[in-house]
Amino acid sequence: MRYKALVSYDGGRYHGFQRQKNATGIQTLIERALRLMTQTDIKIQSAGRTDKGVHALGQVFHFDAEPELDGDTWVRAINDRLPPDIRILDVKPVSDRFHARYDAKAKIYRYVIAKQPSTAFTQGYEVYVRNFAIEPVRQALPMLVGTHDFKGFSKQVGNKDTTKTIFQADVKETKKHYVFTFKGNGFLKYMVRSIMGTLIEIGQGKLDPDVVNDILETQNRSLAGDTAEAKGLFLVKINY
Amino acid sequence: MRYKALVSYDGGRYHGFQRQKNATGIQTLIERALRLMTQTDIKIQSAGRTDKGVHALGQVFHFDAEPELDGDTWVRAINDRLPPDIRILDVKPVSDRFHARYDAKAKIYRYVIAKQPSTAFTQGYEVYVRNFAIEPVRQALPMLVGTHDFKGFSKQVGNKDTTKTIFQADVKETKKHYVFTFKGNGFLKYMVRSIMGTLIEIGQGKLDPDVVNDILETQNRSLAGDTAEAKGLFLVKINY
Repeated sequence: MRYKALVSYDGGRYHGFQRQKNATGIQTLIERALRLMTQTDIKIQSAGRTDKGVHALGQVFHFDAEPELDGDTWVRAINDRLPPDIRILDVKPVSDRFHARYDAKAKIYRYVIAKQPSTAFTQGYEVYVRNFAIEPVRQALPMLVGTHDFKGFSKQVGNKDTTKTIFQADVKETKKHYVFTFKGNGFLKYMVRSIMGTLIEIGQGKLDPDVVNDILETQNRSLAGDTAEAKGLFLVKINY
Repeated sequence: MRYKALVSYDGGRYHGFQRQKNATGIQTLIERALRLMTQTDIKIQSAGRTDKGVHALGQVFHFDAEPELDGDTWVRAINDRLPPDIRILDVKPVSDRFHARYDAKAKIYRYVIAKQPSTAFTQGYEVYVRNFAIEPVRQALPMLVGTHDFKGFSKQVGNKDTTKTIFQADVKETKKHYVFTFKGNGFLKYMVRSIMGTLIEIGQGKLDPDVVNDILETQNRSLAGDTAEAKGLFLVKINY
């Protein structure tokens, strides 16, 4: 039986989602929980990796397992064997042809910039930026929407296709935060953080809004801002 | 010059406030920051210790230092040398006779019980209790108010005076939480967590509300509930 699972995690303590050799990945802990529960080796396949320190509100993975249990039983049994900062939210049976990675139609990421210095309790979930003006950033955001070669906004190496489509790139202002949303058919390694690093420097007046067009046209990574910190980034949702 | 400082910390990563031999205490990190800043050894004196894993919204300490700097300069300079989950909120010059511990008139603690299972992001700051009824707890709370020998609600050993006065012991219900407030002239080691452990078992129907009176009268610790988890406890404020 194939199952689709939804998982949320505070990435602060972890070295990313993927299995790692010398560091604890979230995938390793979920597979360990499944092994403790079923006494069999079960590999999980996620919609995609998240990097060290990145959070997830709704990461998705699938796995194949013998026991035919209802969703709530899976959720409770896996969570009982996971650290409390990794929480399975939902498990449900799916077709054997469902694939968490290949069937993903869109991914939604959020990045949170704080207007004020962080407190001891908020500091792990936002990035404070001094002297940040939102207007030039609002000019730059629409340039990201559409189908572009995002190689200049990534650390992707090799011959992999670096063309992606961004459906939505916007920002909402709240009392204490600027909350950015990026929805696309896929994201390259460090792509959201590289875009955010560039937008941060645009907001600080260090870069011109048009640099976004320049980077998309030239794929010249040296024009982009520094990669923004992981702790402000949340994988919100995978659409299928 | 003597200074009074207000500090907030997420206690999750730390082994309590006090200097420790083999583990990182918050005091050690603050004294290290002061040493890096002033190039002199400065000892700080807090209003009291908090245990491993306990949070603080407003812990107070004093210290003596040569530089006569304004408060904001101290705050910025110390924070720049502290990890982001420890934040100095305020520093101001005080009389040489001010003492953070001996001059404290009252301490306010908060304990947060969650009505629903915690998320990956809330789990460090609340304790979820299954089958928790608030009514019997509301009956027990007023029994704590007043001057009592709280030895039965503590792990205090030796001949130290275990009589304390509790001015306030109440609970507010919100959509997702029961938020307990305890205000007293002082608290013994593990006192709030021992009280909370007992109240939790009262709320679960495992203990009768009157057990609070029994513990206060007999000082018999074996009547009390288990010590509640540290992560739900916040030192809110010290009154002078």
